[in-house]
Amino acid sequence: MERITIVGMGLIGTSLGMALKNGGTRAQIVGFDIERGVASKAKKRGGLDIVASNLEEAVEGARLVVLATPIPVMKELLSFLSTRLADGCVVTDVGGTKANVIQWADELLPSNVNFVGGHPMAGSERSGPEAGSEALFRGVLYPICPSTKAHPDATKTVADMVEAIGAKPYFMDPYEHDTYVAGVSHLPFLLSVSLVATTSKSPSWREMHKVAASGYRDISRLASGDPLMHLGVCETNRDNIVHWLDECIKQLYETRNMIKSGEMAKVHQLLVNAQDARARWVAGVEPGAAPMVEVSAKDVMNNMFVGNYVGKKVGSLRSDQQDQTHSQQKTKDQKR
Amino acid sequence: MERITIVGMGLIGTSLGMALKNGGTRAQIVGFDIERGVASKAKKRGGLDIVASNLEEAVEGARLVVLATPIPVMKELLSFLSTRLADGCVVTDVGGTKANVIQWADELLPSNVNFVGGHPMAGSERSGPEAGSEALFRGVLYPICPSTKAHPDATKTVADMVEAIGAKPYFMDPYEHDTYVAGVSHLPFLLSVSLVATTSKSPSWREMHKVAASGYRDISRLASGDPLMHLGVCETNRDNIVHWLDECIKQLYETRNMIKSGEMAKVHQLLVNAQDARARWVAGVEPGAAPMVEVSAKDVMNNMFVGNYVGKKVGSLRSDQQDQTHSQQKTKDQKR
Repeated sequence: MERITIVGMGLIGTSLGMALKNGGTRAQIVGFDIERGVASKAKKRGGLDIVASNLEEAVEGARLVVLATPIPVMKELLSFLSTRLADGCVVTDVGGTKANVIQWADELLPSNVNFVGGHPMAGSERSGPEAGSEALFRGVLYPICPSTKAHPDATKTVADMVEAIGAKPYFMDPYEHDTYVAGVSHLPFLLSVSLVATTSKSPSWREMHKVAASGYRDISRLASGDPLMHLGVCETNRDNIVHWLDECIKQLYETRNMIKSGEMAKVHQLLVNAQDARARWVAGVEPGAAPMVEVSAKDVMNNMFVGNYVGKKVGSLRSDQQDQTHSQQKTKDQKR
Repeated sequence: MERITIVGMGLIGTSLGMALKNGGTRAQIVGFDIERGVASKAKKRGGLDIVASNLEEAVEGARLVVLATPIPVMKELLSFLSTRLADGCVVTDVGGTKANVIQWADELLPSNVNFVGGHPMAGSERSGPEAGSEALFRGVLYPICPSTKAHPDATKTVADMVEAIGAKPYFMDPYEHDTYVAGVSHLPFLLSVSLVATTSKSPSWREMHKVAASGYRDISRLASGDPLMHLGVCETNRDNIVHWLDECIKQLYETRNMIKSGEMAKVHQLLVNAQDARARWVAGVEPGAAPMVEVSAKDVMNNMFVGNYVGKKVGSLRSDQQDQTHSQQKTKDQKR
C-alpha cells in the first residue's frame, strides 16, 4: 500500500491528514511528532493511520513526505532524512517562506529524491492537533514552488495532494512568493503583534483592556499564533519583511502627521481609498480596473462642516439655524 | 404613549431600534434619517414604528433622543435641536469619542434638557440599515459618560436603555474614555487602514493581492468601516490617537531593527509576550496577575538552532548527524 508520511502533527499536519483521509485517499497516512503524545492525539482526530515511533521508521518506504514542522528545524530535518528516503520519494513542506527551504533541500537531498515546496495559505490562531480540521484547506490558495531540480512528476504529485485536500494549486517562483507573503501575511502578523505589544505594556492597559472590544479582538488575533512558526518565517524572510515594515511605518507616520495637523480632508481621502481598495480585493476585482473614488477636499468640507447634513432636507432650517447661531453668538457676547 | 427618537438610521441606529423593539419596549420608536429612503428601510427591518419626515417632527414630545449620526454633524444637530426638545428630554449619542460631544451638548442644550453620552462598543465593517441586527449589542460593553450637568434620573434612563438592548452599562469619565479607546479602537482601525494603504498602493499589489489570505482579511477588516464615522473619531480624538500612533510606530521600528539585525531571541521573546498578553485578555485574566512567561535567549538557541528538535528523541541521531554534516562540509570543500 502507498504511504504518505507527515512529519509534525500540529494544526497543519493534522488537518492535512484529516483532509486526505476525508478525500478518500487510498494511501496509508503515517504520522510522526517529536513531542510525545501529539501524534496519538492526531490519530484520535482522524489525521493518520499509523503513529511512527521515530523519524526513520516514519519515512520508510514513503512515496510522499510532508514536512509540517516550524521552519527553524527543517534544515536539520532535511539533513537527517537525506540518507533515509526511498528512491523517487517526493518531499514537500508547508512553511510560510519558500526560498530558504528549497535552497536547503537542493543542498542536502540526494538526486533520487525530489523537493517541491508548498504553502497552504490557511491557518488559525489555535495550534496543535486538537485544532485540526478536515475543512481547513477548503478553497484556500496553495502556492507550489518546485525546486528547479524536481521532476515534473513530483510537482504533479504535490499538486494532486493539494487538490485532494480541496485547496487550489498556484505555481510560483519561491523568491516571488516570499516577497508577496511578506506584504500580505508577515506584515499583518507583525502589525497584530505590535498592537498587542504597544497596548499591553502601557501602564494604562490595566484599565484600558476592559474597553477593548471586537475591533481589538480582530486586529490582535494573529498575535495569538504559534511564536515558533512565526519566528521561522521572520528569520527566513528578513529583507522582505524589513521592506514592508519600512513602507508601513512610513504610511503610519504620514497618517499620524495628517491627524496631528488636522488635515481632515487628507485623512478622509485615505480612509475612502482604503475602504475602496479592500472592497475591490474582497470582490475579486483586479486592482486598477477602474479609477479610484476621488473625494475632493471641497466635497468633504461641503458635506460635513458647513452643515449640509442637517441643512439639506429640513425645510427652512438653513436660514432658521443661521439666525439661531447668530442669536447664540449674541448671547455669548453678552455674557462676556 | 412614550416616544423614543433615533436620529440617523444606519447600522447602529437601526440595530438599536430593532433591539429595543425585540426587548419588548412599550415606547413608540420614531426614526429619522437625512438620506431619503433610509428610515423606510430601517422600518422594514423592524427598527422603528414611525418614519418622521423631518427632524423637528421626529423629536416632538420625545422622552429620549438618540443621536446615531457620524460625530462631525452632531454639533450642528445639537444646535438645531436645542430649541425643539420637550422639557425634561434626555439626549444621548452613540459616537466613538465622548469629550467633544459632551462639551458641545453643555454649550448648546438648554438646562431643561439632559445630555448623557454613550458608546456601544459594537460594530461591523458593513453599514446601513440592511446590516442592522437586534443582536448587535448583546453582551457588549456600553460606556456611559453623563454630562456633569445631567440629572441622575437622566443617567438612569440611558442605563435602562442600554440594559434593554442587552448591553452592559459601564460608567466612565469622558476624557478617560477617549484616552482608552484611542489605544484599543482607533489605533487598531488605523493599523488596518495603513495595512491596506501600504499594500494596495504598491506596484506589486497587482500580483500580490492574489496571495492575500485569511490573515490579510482579518487585519484589513476594520478598513472597510464607514469613512465618515471614523473621520469624526479621528477629528475629535487627535491628541490621544497621535500618542498611540507614536507608541506603535516606536514598537514597529524596534521590531524592524530586531529582524534586520537577526536578533531572533529578541523577536521570539516579543512574539511569546504578545501571545501571552492576548491570551490573558481573551481569558479575562487581570494584567500582571502572574509573571509573564520568560524565554531566555539560551533556551531559544537550545531548542531551535542546535537541533534539539530532531535530536531529542531520535536515538543516536546526534552523533550520526554531526558526522553527516561534517562529511557534507568536506564534499563542499572538495567542490571548491
